[in-house]
Amino acid sequence: MSGDQDRAVAELLRLRGSIDNLDAALIHIMAERFKITQRVGQLKAAHGLPPADTDREARQIARLRELAIDSDLDPEFAEKLLNFIVREVVRHHIEIADEHSRGAAAGD
Amino acid sequence: MSGDQDRAVAELLRLRGSIDNLDAALIHIMAERFKITQRVGQLKAAHGLPPADTDREARQIARLRELAIDSDLDPEFAEKLLNFIVREVVRHHIEIADEHSRGAAAGD
Repeated sequence: MSGDQDRAVAELLRLRGSIDNLDAALIHIMAERFKITQRVGQLKAAHGLPPADTDREARQIARLRELAIDSDLDPEFAEKLLNFIVREVVRHHIEIADEHSRGAAAGD
Repeated sequence: MSGDQDRAVAELLRLRGSIDNLDAALIHIMAERFKITQRVGQLKAAHGLPPADTDREARQIARLRELAIDSDLDPEFAEKLLNFIVREVVRHHIEIADEHSRGAAAGD
């Protein structure tokens, strides 16, 4: 049984190495995604567009649920994940819009 | 001003295309990550290891916060994101452990 346990621990360590690699990729994708949504927020603020866009979000959710099904990921989780990210993005956009309107009021 | 607005809309559409590409990558990374954590869950259940591992999680959080800082992502967001994912993984692991103990009780 000890050899069995050793092999299990070795496999666990190997799997954790792969998880760590995927998490690094995840962080870099999220960093890039927020760079882009920051720019979207600036554009929206400069042109007076609303921070949230429910039609766009509905299309994104439908698409990501399909991609999730095709890649064997729980589509409910994919939707929850996008909602989690979008909440953070909308929070950033509201901050940008606030800064923009304060700037406009101050004549910047 | 109309040319300005047109250019802003064109840029918004371009940026959304990039967000959609990153989201597809995100879904595929998450699909692969859950395949690996399902295997981790099976290993843990087969060897009677606890579903959660707080030391491992603390190390993961510290590492991802550093990666986030290096790539200009809010480290608080990176930590919240990992916690969000880990909650889902632990839920899966508890399900796997439950199935395993029911299987063991039934002599499977």
